[in-house]
Amino acid sequence: MTKDLSHLLSLEAKARNNSLLKTIAQYKQPDTAFLASGLPLPEYFAWESISFKTRKPPFEDGLKAFSNESNELVVEVGDKLPLSSGLQYASATGPKPLVEFIKEHTRLVHGDISNDDWDLILTAGSTHAWEAVLRTFTDRGDSILVEKYAFASALETARAKGLNLVTMDIDSHGIIPESLAKTLENWEEGVKYPKLIYTVPTGQNPTGSTIPEERRKLIYEIASKYDIIIVEDEPYYFLQLEDYVEESNRNVSSRRPSDEEFLASLVPSFLKFDVDGRVIRLDSFSKILAPGTRIGSIIAQKPFIERFARDFETTIQNPSGFASLILYETLAYWGQDGYLQWLKALREEYSNKRNVAIDTALSTLGDKPFVTVNIPNAGMFFTISIDATAHPHFTERYNNDPLALEDDIYRTNIANKSVWVPGSWFEVVQDGEERSPLIMFRGTFAATDEETLAEGVKRFAQTLDQVFK
Amino acid sequence: MTKDLSHLLSLEAKARNNSLLKTIAQYKQPDTAFLASGLPLPEYFAWESISFKTRKPPFEDGLKAFSNESNELVVEVGDKLPLSSGLQYASATGPKPLVEFIKEHTRLVHGDISNDDWDLILTAGSTHAWEAVLRTFTDRGDSILVEKYAFASALETARAKGLNLVTMDIDSHGIIPESLAKTLENWEEGVKYPKLIYTVPTGQNPTGSTIPEERRKLIYEIASKYDIIIVEDEPYYFLQLEDYVEESNRNVSSRRPSDEEFLASLVPSFLKFDVDGRVIRLDSFSKILAPGTRIGSIIAQKPFIERFARDFETTIQNPSGFASLILYETLAYWGQDGYLQWLKALREEYSNKRNVAIDTALSTLGDKPFVTVNIPNAGMFFTISIDATAHPHFTERYNNDPLALEDDIYRTNIANKSVWVPGSWFEVVQDGEERSPLIMFRGTFAATDEETLAEGVKRFAQTLDQVFK
Repeated sequence: MTKDLSHLLSLEAKARNNSLLKTIAQYKQPDTAFLASGLPLPEYFAWESISFKTRKPPFEDGLKAFSNESNELVVEVGDKLPLSSGLQYASATGPKPLVEFIKEHTRLVHGDISNDDWDLILTAGSTHAWEAVLRTFTDRGDSILVEKYAFASALETARAKGLNLVTMDIDSHGIIPESLAKTLENWEEGVKYPKLIYTVPTGQNPTGSTIPEERRKLIYEIASKYDIIIVEDEPYYFLQLEDYVEESNRNVSSRRPSDEEFLASLVPSFLKFDVDGRVIRLDSFSKILAPGTRIGSIIAQKPFIERFARDFETTIQNPSGFASLILYETLAYWGQDGYLQWLKALREEYSNKRNVAIDTALSTLGDKPFVTVNIPNAGMFFTISIDATAHPHFTERYNNDPLALEDDIYRTNIANKSVWVPGSWFEVVQDGEERSPLIMFRGTFAATDEETLAEGVKRFAQTLDQVFK
Repeated sequence: MTKDLSHLLSLEAKARNNSLLKTIAQYKQPDTAFLASGLPLPEYFAWESISFKTRKPPFEDGLKAFSNESNELVVEVGDKLPLSSGLQYASATGPKPLVEFIKEHTRLVHGDISNDDWDLILTAGSTHAWEAVLRTFTDRGDSILVEKYAFASALETARAKGLNLVTMDIDSHGIIPESLAKTLENWEEGVKYPKLIYTVPTGQNPTGSTIPEERRKLIYEIASKYDIIIVEDEPYYFLQLEDYVEESNRNVSSRRPSDEEFLASLVPSFLKFDVDGRVIRLDSFSKILAPGTRIGSIIAQKPFIERFARDFETTIQNPSGFASLILYETLAYWGQDGYLQWLKALREEYSNKRNVAIDTALSTLGDKPFVTVNIPNAGMFFTISIDATAHPHFTERYNNDPLALEDDIYRTNIANKSVWVPGSWFEVVQDGEERSPLIMFRGTFAATDEETLAEGVKRFAQTLDQVFK
């Protein structure tokens, strides 16, 4: 059963009142002269109709071959959700049919969520959602737990709010439960107890790692024991890739899995273990359909979703009507099955691109003893770890400072016309903490065509040759 | 010259750092393998094309007669701004061509803004913008100045953040400068000095009043003297209506004004006086084109806009790409002149509707000595003031409590199938303050057709007859 966790809300979230003006809507009846709300009439809207072209499921030829007559789908907006209602002020939870579609999808993907009292609200994307989460659960001076390497922008959001960022140790399988338990057991007296754990559990940014089911269970148990919220930010959840198989052993024509096989292959969400209702899941369409939707969603226990709705009423109100309309009509035409086909096709595309990146990295960097190519099974990123102490002139040239070597590699690489991100940009360093001599670079296999991708990896290998002289 | 007002920024705004990940974009060159940013390739976007139907300027037949072949405009998105760039992650200030169009429009409308160092950023609507303003300029415990009657939702946003709301007296011309000056002169020791003034200066919600130019100048001078930010929230700026002329004297076929006449008729923005760079202007397309755009803009001095950009990078990122694309293509096809024609047509429509509301109110309520019909020259709202002490049984039935009478009118009116909003819902009451015996109801002439509107006013008159017995 869902626990009452309202004590974890922030001062701001606790203080939000219901809007009187929103409650008055109940009196809007056909025979009533409703002069209460300042809504413009649809006849003064600037737009009369919208149509768009998308692709028709099942996307069997992959996603690169864009539409031709046989696989294109032309959709007139308003067929399923009237244009005039989509362009009007809307409820803070988002248009009902779109919300219902995503909820049904959620049930398909995550099965029976332990917390049977969950609900869903649309966001303006996960960046917005994360900021809203912080305002809903934290006050200035509070502590939160973050992965030792984490998405820099998400950390910036928290730092600007005066939060105390405490790191969780990670390895190639993400957060290490034993280490997390130890951190909490030995929590420093006088430092505020952490309100929440922030994690990108699948295809983590920057490491590319994915937390396996067993670890998720253990982490959840720790969170439950210490009364901490888990925020799982899952933009890459549907970029869970086929296992990496070395090029020589790869079976090129792999059959597309059935819906059942596909769904069974996905790592379970923290929601699966969430008996207390302490998991806040952030989903996003940015990596799946297009960043420009600026639509995502939050799943959480109902009382939390209600607090988010009160927040959104005084911030974004709801995602853009244009985006909601087009997104909804697309999903409705595809259907749940068509949407799963899209996700499977996307997995195939990204698996291929990951293969290009890793094949090239292994063939150009694999023989360097001081280099580790970390192979991701989800997301958009891969990383190369480098042992700085292996540099022949680490002391003389870099004064034993891993950051100095990292910076040299970064700049030399740019001079070689290849741009990767230094790992230190993502690292959370606690006061007085000594830096590891293991440096890291993050590349993405998402943003370029395969030729440029392979070229970028080769140039990075050349850079290392140059710098390690 | 713009002053350095950075001391007015909040802790959160001061703490925001530039995103390293955003600075790396400078290395993205055609011959570079750019593996730094996790952007999906446009070939994996779900949409290939979007088109929409709007109306062709100059909208001479008004806005109710929706498009027919002669006045419709079918637009293919991507002609002026590529679809693939609109649907990608974008800069936090919004797509450049759209921003430039709105800036040019701003120069047309507001002429030479005193602060020549201004800039503009797109928002997810003014509700979002106001919340961002509060996070950028206020900390928990700070004071802000608000109109005695103000938009309830905007007040809620501030209250939840633990701000101290101090009221400014208003009359039928909005904020009373002398009274404001007195409030600041006699500021209570120990109470934090106010950071900002929040005002809806044109077609205020709920009162419908507009602050005239001379008062704006005086209010600006006071703000400058006491080092206070002015936030002008202007959703109704382009709903400045023709002057109300009694029905019997009205000239029905009034000529549409030229662009010059139209622009000259608009009350000047606080920007006109803003030599210091202390005005933050919030604009919105919600009341002009459709609420579903969820696009507005903030105009302010450049260093403030830069702080908003850092904020948006970690919240909304930018308005929805679908909305930006469709909005931009529409405005670009219309051109600056076509957009002014739209605004003029809109003024005609709303002037007519205001006339219906006021004609009906004057004819049904005008003879009641205890009632004042307040005639608005801007916005969507009109108000009726009622002297509670004139009620024949004010003491016995309502215990001399104006709120009890207000509530009776509210409920009786709903029973009569007419819904108006009680003025007390908008009133900001300071501790220990006695309530005025003047009660008020707000109606809107925007949300219904003219028949229903007239019917709603008549029913309100009947309600008063019933209650005042």
